Amino acid sequence: MAFKHKDLLSLRDVEREEIEMILSTAASMRQLLDSPTKKTAHLQGKSIVTLFYENSTRTRMSFELASKYMSAAAANISASASSVQKGETLLDTGRTLDRMGTDVIIIRHPMSGAPHLLAQHVNAAVINAGDGINEHPTQALLDMFTIKRHKGRLDGLKVAIVGDVLHSRVARSNIFGLHTMGAEVALCAPPTLMPAQMEELGVKTYTRVEEAVEGADVVMGLRIQKERQEEGNFPSLREYSEFFGINEERMKYAKPDALIMHPGPINRGVEITSDAADCEQSVINEQVTSGVAVRMALLYLLTRKGVQSV
Amino acid sequence: MAFKHKDLLSLRDVEREEIEMILSTAASMRQLLDSPTKKTAHLQGKSIVTLFYENSTRTRMSFELASKYMSAAAANISASASSVQKGETLLDTGRTLDRMGTDVIIIRHPMSGAPHLLAQHVNAAVINAGDGINEHPTQALLDMFTIKRHKGRLDGLKVAIVGDVLHSRVARSNIFGLHTMGAEVALCAPPTLMPAQMEELGVKTYTRVEEAVEGADVVMGLRIQKERQEEGNFPSLREYSEFFGINEERMKYAKPDALIMHPGPINRGVEITSDAADCEQSVINEQVTSGVAVRMALLYLLTRKGVQSV
Amino acid sequence: MAFKHKDLLSLRDVEREEIEMILSTAASMRQLLDSPTKKTAHLQGKSIVTLFYENSTRTRMSFELASKYMSAAAANISASASSVQKGETLLDTGRTLDRMGTDVIIIRHPMSGAPHLLAQHVNAAVINAGDGINEHPTQALLDMFTIKRHKGRLDGLKVAIVGDVLHSRVARSNIFGLHTMGAEVALCAPPTLMPAQMEELGVKTYTRVEEAVEGADVVMGLRIQKERQEEGNFPSLREYSEFFGINEERMKYAKPDALIMHPGPINRGVEITSDAADCEQSVINEQVTSGVAVRMALLYLLTRKGVQSV
Repeated sequence: MAFKHKDLLSLRDVEREEIEMILSTAASMRQLLDSPTKKTAHLQGKSIVTLFYENSTRTRMSFELASKYMSAAAANISASASSVQKGETLLDTGRTLDRMGTDVIIIRHPMSGAPHLLAQHVNAAVINAGDGINEHPTQALLDMFTIKRHKGRLDGLKVAIVGDVLHSRVARSNIFGLHTMGAEVALCAPPTLMPAQMEELGVKTYTRVEEAVEGADVVMGLRIQKERQEEGNFPSLREYSEFFGINEERMKYAKPDALIMHPGPINRGVEITSDAADCEQSVINEQVTSGVAVRMALLYLLTRKGVQSV
Repeated sequence: MAFKHKDLLSLRDVEREEIEMILSTAASMRQLLDSPTKKTAHLQGKSIVTLFYENSTRTRMSFELASKYMSAAAANISASASSVQKGETLLDTGRTLDRMGTDVIIIRHPMSGAPHLLAQHVNAAVINAGDGINEHPTQALLDMFTIKRHKGRLDGLKVAIVGDVLHSRVARSNIFGLHTMGAEVALCAPPTLMPAQMEELGVKTYTRVEEAVEGADVVMGLRIQKERQEEGNFPSLREYSEFFGINEERMKYAKPDALIMHPGPINRGVEITSDAADCEQSVINEQVTSGVAVRMALLYLLTRKGVQSV
Repeated sequence: MAFKHKDLLSLRDVEREEIEMILSTAASMRQLLDSPTKKTAHLQGKSIVTLFYENSTRTRMSFELASKYMSAAAANISASASSVQKGETLLDTGRTLDRMGTDVIIIRHPMSGAPHLLAQHVNAAVINAGDGINEHPTQALLDMFTIKRHKGRLDGLKVAIVGDVLHSRVARSNIFGLHTMGAEVALCAPPTLMPAQMEELGVKTYTRVEEAVEGADVVMGLRIQKERQEEGNFPSLREYSEFFGINEERMKYAKPDALIMHPGPINRGVEITSDAADCEQSVINEQVTSGVAVRMALLYLLTRKGVQSV
């Protein structure tokens, strides 16, 4: 059985069987990562390029190491050093990479939809590594992988997502993916940071953390971007932390063995206390390893025969 | 038969047999690029460093991927991140790379002649990836490779080069290389962007595009650097485009099967219309693949026994 | 026999047998570097990340090429392009790299002690590639390797170090390492650039170069950082050069076959004249090759079983 998509742009239309294929492939990759020699020849002769129009150490490194562990020719382009500055359009850059033999382009872009546009015009497989406030599907896949590893399943679980939902591509991709896998999602944010009509996506929304996490199997914090405060979305970091920060007190409302998750990097003392981030229930560090495993799985699946684009 | 030069700095003194050797080696590399697995061990154990004092995504990536497809240890230095800032001279940087075991240094530098200076002081092979307004020999080689692939020969062809000839290292290298291979070169530029006494190089010069491309087998546009406008070299981009832009109307003066080429990245609607850039006669995207093939060929030839410097 | 430290942070507590193990391993690596094919599988399946919070071409490239010659998956993070900008702490960055499977983190940081802090919180081996004005142990190891290669021993030699001792992590690491190996160290600096109570470290201090280099087997210049002049530490570069620059005249006070060394990049005409830097006694260029060999040795030793942290 082969993965049937050319690209991974969104989790909105990826079916349950496909997500399961990614997660089970990632499980094999995870075993490799835990072994003393993290090297396979799966991507030998393949070329993987990260094309990042926004800075990111974590995500770029995760893809880069995933590529190198699998013996790919891996190269990086960051917007500031690129001929973007010469006015080349995204599509011309993409076509150029295509013609250099690139098999997978991993793109992060501040504009929602940029990866979709790129994917339509290149032969290379395109992976969306975050586009504006739209989606970040590999983050959601690694979150699901981590949850499944600990809970044995996704079906029937309750996942509470707390923080700046309005600007979170992580939240959006998780909503799509978790629903597909049969989990229930509860969202909690200050009213200024909660998009309208989220209920139409089939989620419940809350403004009190204690209510949102009630009975949850997983509590996921979202990163607060400090520039949002200047935009007047919330009064102060201290106040945000007081009312929306994840801490051990609030975790008492969740199930006793609920997982604590965060896409990282965390602002300690803002969206999550150090106590909560470093406690036994926290799988934040493990999410990082899951990220490499999931990305290895995707690179592997997308460089085999794919037929159809998501 | 081995390539007899230590370096590739200029096409001025490279002989016909040598250019043919590069092009035929590139043809083998091109086959590899078209295969599903783009990996050879030709540069296993060799070390290739790009040393770029000017930004360039295309050229840097082309060399980097060429190196990696051939299993070299490849590393990049960009001027802004380098100890150039600590006042180290070019020669000390070169000697340092030499002593780290670097086999090939690929240099781009804003000063004409910098690669020649470097080559005299290092054991590593030096490839000029563009020096000021002097030369860009690998670009000319990939242009010739592309032309030969489509026309079967270079001898006796007419190549029209249109644009900012004054500042174009691409034009200069092409003039040298194409003449060596027996092709005829016609240049077309606004009078402010045409160097004096170009006829001494054996080319014909024009100020009307229609005349320059008359009967041409190849029409090559050059990139307009927008900062040139501020220097007063031409009144406006719109006016430049109107009088010197390559478009389908003007292509009617060339042979019906004339190729359209451009070193990229293109300014769509300035030196070339999107219609012309994307039409059937255009080989602009293919030039990119040729670039990787030609650079693989050069890296291969220069890391085998070379005896003498160009 | 295996290297017993998890990390290499300082030379203060590394024992003689351990330094000898590093130097003899480096000797094998040096042979490899001199062979036509610089490739081993020693780090196959290992992941090496350089994490540089200060710019450095030389040191970063030396580690990067060392890693690649040994077939590691090697990746770079530079502070300006990293999520440092998002406020992630050093420890969170380190833990993230840990969880991505990184085997060795090579850190350069403007704050003294940063590598030690990192090493306490990660499973990866940590190599200090320079921390503030504290230490730069791999530089001292490559200096010792170079000296031993030429003099056959370190025991009983006199090494004179001349320049800005106050701000020199190179000087500090050399003092620790050379003493452990039985060499004698003489320091020479303007009074404003000599730390107080250096004699407690067992060295002799001088303000006249001629006295310091008297009978020396090795004369090592230190880099003058031009910003120190603005701080009023010395009146002018010309005057510094006149009183403290290493030149052929002053070398007459050392032994006739004394080595001239410098960590590079050199300011020609400031801390050393071109005559002295390029003369027969100078091993400055060779130090660069030694650097790659020593770093290969360390990467090899630290990725085998290590038990205890320095």
